[in-house]
Amino acid sequence: MEQRVEDKYARRWDVDSYDTIATEVLEAIPFEYPGSKTDVVYTDPEFTSVCPWTGLPDFGTLTITYVPGDKLVELKSLKYYLNSFRNVGILQEHVVNRVKEDLVKLLNPVSLTVEAEFRPRGGISTYVRADYRRA
Amino acid sequence: MEQRVEDKYARRWDVDSYDTIATEVLEAIPFEYPGSKTDVVYTDPEFTSVCPWTGLPDFGTLTITYVPGDKLVELKSLKYYLNSFRNVGILQEHVVNRVKEDLVKLLNPVSLTVEAEFRPRGGISTYVRADYRRA
Amino acid sequence: MEQRVEDKYARRWDVDSYDTIATEVLEAIPFEYPGSKTDVVYTDPEFTSVCPWTGLPDFGTLTITYVPGDKLVELKSLKYYLNSFRNVGILQEHVVNRVKEDLVKLLNPVSLTVEAEFRPRGGISTYVRADYRRA
Amino acid sequence: MEQRVEDKYARRWDVDSYDTIATEVLEAIPFEYPGSKTDVVYTDPEFTSVCPWTGLPDFGTLTITYVPGDKLVELKSLKYYLNSFRNVGILQEHVVNRVKEDLVKLLNPVSLTVEAEFRPRGGISTYVRADYRRA
Amino acid sequence: MEQRVEDKYARRWDVDSYDTIATEVLEAIPFEYPGSKTDVVYTDPEFTSVCPWTGLPDFGTLTITYVPGDKLVELKSLKYYLNSFRNVGILQEHVVNRVKEDLVKLLNPVSLTVEAEFRPRGGISTYVRADYRRA
Amino acid sequence: MEQRVEDKYARRWDVDSYDTIATEVLEAIPFEYPGSKTDVVYTDPEFTSVCPWTGLPDFGTLTITYVPGDKLVELKSLKYYLNSFRNVGILQEHVVNRVKEDLVKLLNPVSLTVEAEFRPRGGISTYVRADYRRA
Amino acid sequence: MEQRVEDKYARRWDVDSYDTIATEVLEAIPFEYPGSKTDVVYTDPEFTSVCPWTGLPDFGTLTITYVPGDKLVELKSLKYYLNSFRNVGILQEHVVNRVKEDLVKLLNPVSLTVEAEFRPRGGISTYVRADYRRA
Amino acid sequence: MEQRVEDKYARRWDVDSYDTIATEVLEAIPFEYPGSKTDVVYTDPEFTSVCPWTGLPDFGTLTITYVPGDKLVELKSLKYYLNSFRNVGILQEHVVNRVKEDLVKLLNPVSLTVEAEFRPRGGISTYVRADYRRA
Amino acid sequence: MEQRVEDKYARRWDVDSYDTIATEVLEAIPFEYPGSKTDVVYTDPEFTSVCPWTGLPDFGTLTITYVPGDKLVELKSLKYYLNSFRNVGILQEHVVNRVKEDLVKLLNPVSLTVEAEFRPRGGISTYVRADYRRA
Amino acid sequence: MEQRVEDKYARRWDVDSYDTIATEVLEAIPFEYPGSKTDVVYTDPEFTSVCPWTGLPDFGTLTITYVPGDKLVELKSLKYYLNSFRNVGILQEHVVNRVKEDLVKLLNPVSLTVEAEFRPRGGISTYVRADYRRA
Ligand SMILES: [Ca+2]
Ligand SMILES: [Ca+2]
Ligand SMILES: [Ca+2]
Ligand SMILES: [Ca+2]
Ligand SMILES: [Ca+2]
Ligand SMILES: [Ca+2]
Ligand SMILES: [Ca+2]
Ligand SMILES: [Ca+2]
Ligand SMILES: [Ca+2]
Ligand SMILES: [Ca+2]
Ligand SMILES: [Ca+2]
Ligand SMILES: [Ca+2]
Ligand SMILES: [Ca+2]
Ligand SMILES: [Ca+2]
Ligand SMILES: [Ca+2]
Ligand SMILES: [Ca+2]
Repeated sequence: MEQRVEDKYARRWDVDSYDTIATEVLEAIPFEYPGSKTDVVYTDPEFTSVCPWTGLPDFGTLTITYVPGDKLVELKSLKYYLNSFRNVGILQEHVVNRVKEDLVKLLNPVSLTVEAEFRPRGGISTYVRADYRRA
Repeated sequence: MEQRVEDKYARRWDVDSYDTIATEVLEAIPFEYPGSKTDVVYTDPEFTSVCPWTGLPDFGTLTITYVPGDKLVELKSLKYYLNSFRNVGILQEHVVNRVKEDLVKLLNPVSLTVEAEFRPRGGISTYVRADYRRA
Repeated sequence: MEQRVEDKYARRWDVDSYDTIATEVLEAIPFEYPGSKTDVVYTDPEFTSVCPWTGLPDFGTLTITYVPGDKLVELKSLKYYLNSFRNVGILQEHVVNRVKEDLVKLLNPVSLTVEAEFRPRGGISTYVRADYRRA
Repeated sequence: MEQRVEDKYARRWDVDSYDTIATEVLEAIPFEYPGSKTDVVYTDPEFTSVCPWTGLPDFGTLTITYVPGDKLVELKSLKYYLNSFRNVGILQEHVVNRVKEDLVKLLNPVSLTVEAEFRPRGGISTYVRADYRRA
Repeated sequence: MEQRVEDKYARRWDVDSYDTIATEVLEAIPFEYPGSKTDVVYTDPEFTSVCPWTGLPDFGTLTITYVPGDKLVELKSLKYYLNSFRNVGILQEHVVNRVKEDLVKLLNPVSLTVEAEFRPRGGISTYVRADYRRA
Repeated sequence: MEQRVEDKYARRWDVDSYDTIATEVLEAIPFEYPGSKTDVVYTDPEFTSVCPWTGLPDFGTLTITYVPGDKLVELKSLKYYLNSFRNVGILQEHVVNRVKEDLVKLLNPVSLTVEAEFRPRGGISTYVRADYRRA
Repeated sequence: MEQRVEDKYARRWDVDSYDTIATEVLEAIPFEYPGSKTDVVYTDPEFTSVCPWTGLPDFGTLTITYVPGDKLVELKSLKYYLNSFRNVGILQEHVVNRVKEDLVKLLNPVSLTVEAEFRPRGGISTYVRADYRRA
Repeated sequence: MEQRVEDKYARRWDVDSYDTIATEVLEAIPFEYPGSKTDVVYTDPEFTSVCPWTGLPDFGTLTITYVPGDKLVELKSLKYYLNSFRNVGILQEHVVNRVKEDLVKLLNPVSLTVEAEFRPRGGISTYVRADYRRA
Repeated sequence: MEQRVEDKYARRWDVDSYDTIATEVLEAIPFEYPGSKTDVVYTDPEFTSVCPWTGLPDFGTLTITYVPGDKLVELKSLKYYLNSFRNVGILQEHVVNRVKEDLVKLLNPVSLTVEAEFRPRGGISTYVRADYRRA
Repeated sequence: MEQRVEDKYARRWDVDSYDTIATEVLEAIPFEYPGSKTDVVYTDPEFTSVCPWTGLPDFGTLTITYVPGDKLVELKSLKYYLNSFRNVGILQEHVVNRVKEDLVKLLNPVSLTVEAEFRPRGGISTYVRADYRRA
């Protein structure tokens, strides 16, 4: 009986490929106090992407923490960049590493961390964190 | 300078029409205690649709409260139905009324309320609630 | 690819039938202030049963509120009774109505309400409440 | 094996009888605004008594709410009175009714409610409430 | 009188042996950023097993934190694995060490911690934590 | 000594007159479910105006609740309207009544409430609420 | 031994009489929307007076709620008035009734409530509320 | 007048001596993962003893944290041991040190900490912590 | 207009000098576990003194943390000592340093910290902390 | 259609230049315990400035933490200084660095940190922190 129910309701949603991640929309602006030890944190409680296998959405809070070198990320461009993951099929463990790589390339920061805290799936919630430190 | 910045970053995202709302996926199942005064509440903190003008997403908690007549909504079909709003361009005030109408048609409940509490836009958060009561 | 993954990981757990609900363990004790208007509430944040189709567990907080006539339920017997749902396959909407019926039969109370608030499944949490009032 | 463990650790603590409840220590003082509609609430988060069968302690928050007629209970005498339940063996459902009766006799209030919210035993917490209203 | 009550209500529930822990259902998947310093945390607030002596259930939040080497644990397989403790009789102190050993064997991680925070029994709650670090 | 300190630090800030309240920026849009009983609530935790005597700012959360007739207020126009109070000298008790009057004129709602909860001044916080109901 | 300790540490602090309550500092200002149904609430979490017997201080949150007729209380004068209770020896039950009487005389409001929630003494906290409604 | 009131209400409650602390009820059980770095924490929010001078009760949360050597404390025996302080007259500062010494003797742990956080007396709450580390 | 209002309502309250701080009431008692590493924390959420310039009260939570040498401060004497600041005119920054000096002189502790967290004035709250460590 | 809506509602508010930041109002007062290790923290949850491009306000909590050398900032002058940012067009990242520089110049502190936590814009909230330490 279980199988019949599953057959009846199971659906697969369309999934965008990595190509739709809008890395090109990211803009850097000059940091005017490069000699000042400064921490910057952006918190986006509205991050969402989709499961690459089922197309069902994941929701989480994504946090970016960095010590700028001489560049800041422009906030509106960051918003559009993060919004471009909306229909991309990507595993939660990959999201933070992809964002980390795109922002390190853009900003060449002293250090940068990307964290994501995803809402539960199957009763289990997942947190992932990736760190970068300039050598 | 403001204008230049706006031009540079402004983007418009694709928006699905109301046709993609998957009303047809909703399934009713029999309520086996129709003589028992019972309240049922489903809370979905992962509701999202998009602004019909900008394509930017709205996020909110959508709550459905009803006293069943002789039908319940099957939970997995409800999930798929709500997920189908993901890329639909629809105003927040319309969402709760659309969901209300689709569920009243499906279930013919004694009463039914749909509430949505959306995260702030421009610093202001919005809550909308629509009520139905069988005459 | 989705199908392959599902095939690989999908499991079905054993499910007990309704017969294993230990209604017979429930014990009533005399209420010594039957003339005193008294409300009694028991809250069990450790209620669990399983899905009748998949055998996967549901978890919730079950609350029983009643105005006694001349009987109270003995607390330890209530605990054993609720524990007997542990491996029973039963829908969330049925749980509160079943508990309501068993306790009304045992206690003949002035009024009695059973509520259950289940943890999210597919991102959606469910609350169900059934009320009884002596005619 | 279970039995052996139980034998090894089971203990029974001494239990005082109802005679040790210090009703006589309660003192009333005049309420100087008897014509003024006034509510008074005392909250004691340190109430404790013991189980009449095992001698193990119960802990709870006991709340007394009343509309005075022309008398108030003196607060320090109330504290000593409540403290006198410390080693008395009494069921949770009886505590609120006993306190209600002692205070109604002392104060002849317009109305009076005694509530108690006990910490969980066997995972289940209990709340009891008894109401009095002058005829 | 205490003894009589205990005799009347005492029950012993069936207990599964360690053999039913489904270690074999655990699946590893490749970690695609093995050079990236990454922390992964899974939080399962729905962990339950049973007391080996009484068969009564324990409930807790189990948390797994690790720095992957080149493998991740597949989330659905983890869920099934943890669910297989449901009726196993195992002490709380053993649970975290057993999970730790099974996952270290599966993943060969850089480091791994298993924590469990159990709901109170006899008024006392227990937290246990076991740490592994690759030599 | 007190006087000297006061003289030294006392300042008076410029205050705008009521004329700068941008009532004209408010826009109504049609409500497409006028037959549906609907509640709409906007919460602005960023409301600020200034004291008419000292020019020092007040900060508060302003909440607008209404049952629409056949018009809604456009959210962005509401934001600009509320922002226009920023440098206006107006007493807290007047703010809610002024907003109430402007919105009732714009929307002709079935009912409308404006609340404001201001942060403490001199240790005392103030809440004001004004209600309108169509005759 | 108890007695010796008490003797050693017991102190009695000076207590001001009711004469020092600065009723005369209260000022009313005109309410400019007397036809508008308006609620006004002032919350003072810094209220303090002293015990008439020991001179030890009581601390509480005092809340004044009223529907004005045609007068408001000026906020700074209210602050000075409440501050004048600082060293007055007055029972908690009397404070709310005294404030109620002074403000009703000043404002002739449609209705007025004074509440006070005092921090615990002897482990027990006290809440008192007095209501006035214009006949 | 103060003195008269004190005379009238002052009471002294019976106090047990240190002899009644049931150290002998404590039982150790073998720790089966002595090579595994493991932390164990027990939290008892129901700890109570009495003031040695007045006999009035103290209430607090007592927390025991340790890294076991090759022994664990049996939980039920710990509960009985802590319950035996119920009527013992002992200063708060002594409680944690006494428990520390009894458990160190029983368990010979790698390290052990006892903390207690007592509810306010005279408006002031007290926290005490004692640490042991095996040399 | 501002000036006129200020003239009308401005008041200055009496202020006690430093002489009224009751340092002499502080009592030390022996610490019976001087060889045990012990932390003691007292938290007083009812600290109040007055502004030396305006006589208006400040309210805060004062916390004392220390590692005793061979003396403890007697709790009731500490309460009386802190209460003696009630009408003393003293800056918030001076309070913690004065208390620190008085207690270091009394106790000769291994280390001692005094913190105070004052409620907002002019919208800004202040926290001050002073540390002592025996050389 | 989006463009038309934007045209209709878009507004640009006046923006003050950096010249209106009232650095000159800041006053230092002597710190009377320069040999005492002391931390001072001011928290202003009412900080506001405006976006240099749109004139729309930003709101945040600004926190200043420092170890004084021999000077403190006078609190009322700090309030006026922070209030002077009210209509200044300045980026969030610049605010903390500007405040840091002004206060370091005024106070020559041992160390000083300025943090600001801004409310969300476009769903993303920003935190910025700048640190100074005397060489
Ligand atoms: Ca986080
Ligand atoms: Ca979260
Ligand atoms: Ca809600
Ligand atoms: Ca809830
Ligand atoms: Ca509930
Ligand atoms: Ca309660
Ligand atoms: Ca945890
Ligand atoms: Ca803990
Ligand atoms: Ca509010
Ligand atoms: Ca209140
Ligand atoms: Ca309170
Ligand atoms: Ca209350
Ligand atoms: Ca604690
Ligand atoms: Ca603090
Ligand atoms: Ca903060
Ligand atoms: Ca923060």
